[in-house]
Amino acid sequence: MAFQKMPGTQDILPGAVERWQYVEQKARDICQRYNFREIRTPIFESTELFQRGVGETTDIVEKEMYTFTDRGNRSLTLRPEGTAGVVRSYVENKLYGEPDVSKLYYIGPMFRYERPQAGRYRQLHQFGVEALGSVDPAIDAEVVALGYTFYTEVGLKGVRVEINSVGTPAVRTVFRERLLAFLEPKRELLCKDCQSRMDRNPLRVLDCKVDQEHFTDAPSILDSLDEECQIHFDKVKMYLTDMGIPYEINHRLVRGLDYYTHTAFEYKAEGIGTIDTVGGGGRYNGLVSEIGGPDQPGVGLGLGLERTILLLQHQETELPISSQIDVYVVALGEAAEREVTKLVYQLRQRGIKAERDYLGRKMKAQMKSADRLQARYTAILGDDELERGEISLKDMAKGEQRVVALDKLADEIIG
Amino acid sequence: MAFQKMPGTQDILPGAVERWQYVEQKARDICQRYNFREIRTPIFESTELFQRGVGETTDIVEKEMYTFTDRGNRSLTLRPEGTAGVVRSYVENKLYGEPDVSKLYYIGPMFRYERPQAGRYRQLHQFGVEALGSVDPAIDAEVVALGYTFYTEVGLKGVRVEINSVGTPAVRTVFRERLLAFLEPKRELLCKDCQSRMDRNPLRVLDCKVDQEHFTDAPSILDSLDEECQIHFDKVKMYLTDMGIPYEINHRLVRGLDYYTHTAFEYKAEGIGTIDTVGGGGRYNGLVSEIGGPDQPGVGLGLGLERTILLLQHQETELPISSQIDVYVVALGEAAEREVTKLVYQLRQRGIKAERDYLGRKMKAQMKSADRLQARYTAILGDDELERGEISLKDMAKGEQRVVALDKLADEIIG
Repeated sequence: MAFQKMPGTQDILPGAVERWQYVEQKARDICQRYNFREIRTPIFESTELFQRGVGETTDIVEKEMYTFTDRGNRSLTLRPEGTAGVVRSYVENKLYGEPDVSKLYYIGPMFRYERPQAGRYRQLHQFGVEALGSVDPAIDAEVVALGYTFYTEVGLKGVRVEINSVGTPAVRTVFRERLLAFLEPKRELLCKDCQSRMDRNPLRVLDCKVDQEHFTDAPSILDSLDEECQIHFDKVKMYLTDMGIPYEINHRLVRGLDYYTHTAFEYKAEGIGTIDTVGGGGRYNGLVSEIGGPDQPGVGLGLGLERTILLLQHQETELPISSQIDVYVVALGEAAEREVTKLVYQLRQRGIKAERDYLGRKMKAQMKSADRLQARYTAILGDDELERGEISLKDMAKGEQRVVALDKLADEIIG
Repeated sequence: MAFQKMPGTQDILPGAVERWQYVEQKARDICQRYNFREIRTPIFESTELFQRGVGETTDIVEKEMYTFTDRGNRSLTLRPEGTAGVVRSYVENKLYGEPDVSKLYYIGPMFRYERPQAGRYRQLHQFGVEALGSVDPAIDAEVVALGYTFYTEVGLKGVRVEINSVGTPAVRTVFRERLLAFLEPKRELLCKDCQSRMDRNPLRVLDCKVDQEHFTDAPSILDSLDEECQIHFDKVKMYLTDMGIPYEINHRLVRGLDYYTHTAFEYKAEGIGTIDTVGGGGRYNGLVSEIGGPDQPGVGLGLGLERTILLLQHQETELPISSQIDVYVVALGEAAEREVTKLVYQLRQRGIKAERDYLGRKMKAQMKSADRLQARYTAILGDDELERGEISLKDMAKGEQRVVALDKLADEIIG
């Protein structure tokens, strides 16, 4: 019986994994420039953390969590997103007591039990940042800029930023009434999801993918902002304009839960025939206290790596990736084979990417391997050369071959 | 109510995470030189994969797995180790059909429900390599060398290699009889675990930590090796000697399951007052077919990263880690603050690690931040300087301060 991976999970194999390594390294480099530092939180947390931190009424918590009981009878959940764990860690480790703002990033797997489809996985991977401890709108703009820089630098074309302000809970209470007054007469025209959201979370109705035609004249939350919210939003926009980050205002862009405040944003990219959201984020001044911490503000983003990599492939973006090796060493004869085992080890100790045969293959098959690995050099050792302490070294690009002393091989390759 | 991480899991925070990044990057660099390429397999697999691939009679499968049922009623298990998933992927993706040996590495979290204690976690992290498709003893030696190189290059001192041959299943059938003949008369003297192992898996009895005094005269499996096993073992030892890798033979070192063959090895390091196993591996020519694949051989290793990092700290090894930033930019005045938001963005776009204040703090507090971040430069912008298009730049090491044009700041810092 052969085993298969579970539905919605993937094997990332050599040949594909280099794209992941490249994209992740870009994320790390950019975070370093922005002075965000990595945090690693556990793959699973208590189920209640996500109920509180992601929100009871969200699809994620209602339908998509991998929740189970451990051998100590605790209810655990594989993290469905990154923010709740980071904020839990910020509180538990009292990072709020440090003098500087906590600027944290994470890269890793998340888990959601969704219907598997192209580009959508049950084990998905996200890159995210969280800045905790500041209400400065400059840091909202910085987080938006960081994500935009990431997409630009990995080579994704046509990425657009949409932003909105979702105000404060007080602002939303006022807006919710205005919105419901607009929606109620249309209730019967709307989809089931919208009807259910009207009762639980009316702001999210405007997010619906199927009912947009009915929302043309919907009220805008931007008309309900109070002075504090307006100033914050104006500053974020001003900073983004100063930075030269192109953005559009989308007053229907919402993050539904009560702890979201002020800035909400999404990145859109041209997908396969359609415009897709590839990532997003926002400010969440109520979240830290929601999960039991002090009243500290926060702002962050989360970007889907599957989506990013899929779009890069779809756009046929060439990434600067090479898995070329430096030298392939061919042994001809038994004594040479022993020497090559030592030699290859020594080359690697010198920092050289070296490979050899492990299948007792003939020279021709070994040369084919050297080609597949795009070896810069091929080195050939026969028992005769070995006796003279020499080895043949062929520069594969130039096609030139020469004989060098065995103990000078590493120097010759390093050049 | 405040939330806590689950027992046996950890938060790896800035300040500690840099050690992880360093150690993992070393692993990646070495794998690249050895031409091992990364594979990423899912965090969870079907429970049966581990029952077959790790072994029904192992502690891991019997007592330590995080097993649960998903919403589709499948029995899933969080991977307790790395090899089973890699081998499943090798078979499922038909990597055995490729012309070269599959040389794969992984770095990532594993999950075992053990009693949490110092250096032992329920979410642990391993670096491992698997070479699939070759019976060449040179690749056994290469794998041993790779792990030894890893420990050496991260800076761990006093690492020793112990190796053994566990033969083939046929060899072990003969040896098992000899061993039981030796053990039976001592049965009552041995611990409960040993007594139970005698019936299920007698070779593992010799591994017992408490009963060693009774095993002084135990038979050695090395006296039971057949010719094929002897030749393989002799070659592995010869190659290790050629490479200059110090090793000792430990004929009691076992890997208990039937699909293990020939080489078994462990790395030992001086721990906190005691000698600890920090990693190990071996050849497993029976595993690929055990989990439903073709009859392909394999050899690999798995190293615990928690243990490695703990020992590095215990040995007070200084790692070449820096989280120094290039420049901290201080704004004095409202116009300057706006400019600094743009300026810091532009510096980061130029590849410069730049930071600023987000808390509206006074100059003195900001300078303290610059010190904490070990900024190479501090740049100070007042509204006056801004009007002249200039900024003060202070070299923190030299203590020298000069005024430079705003639009030349990046060039000055890059130097």
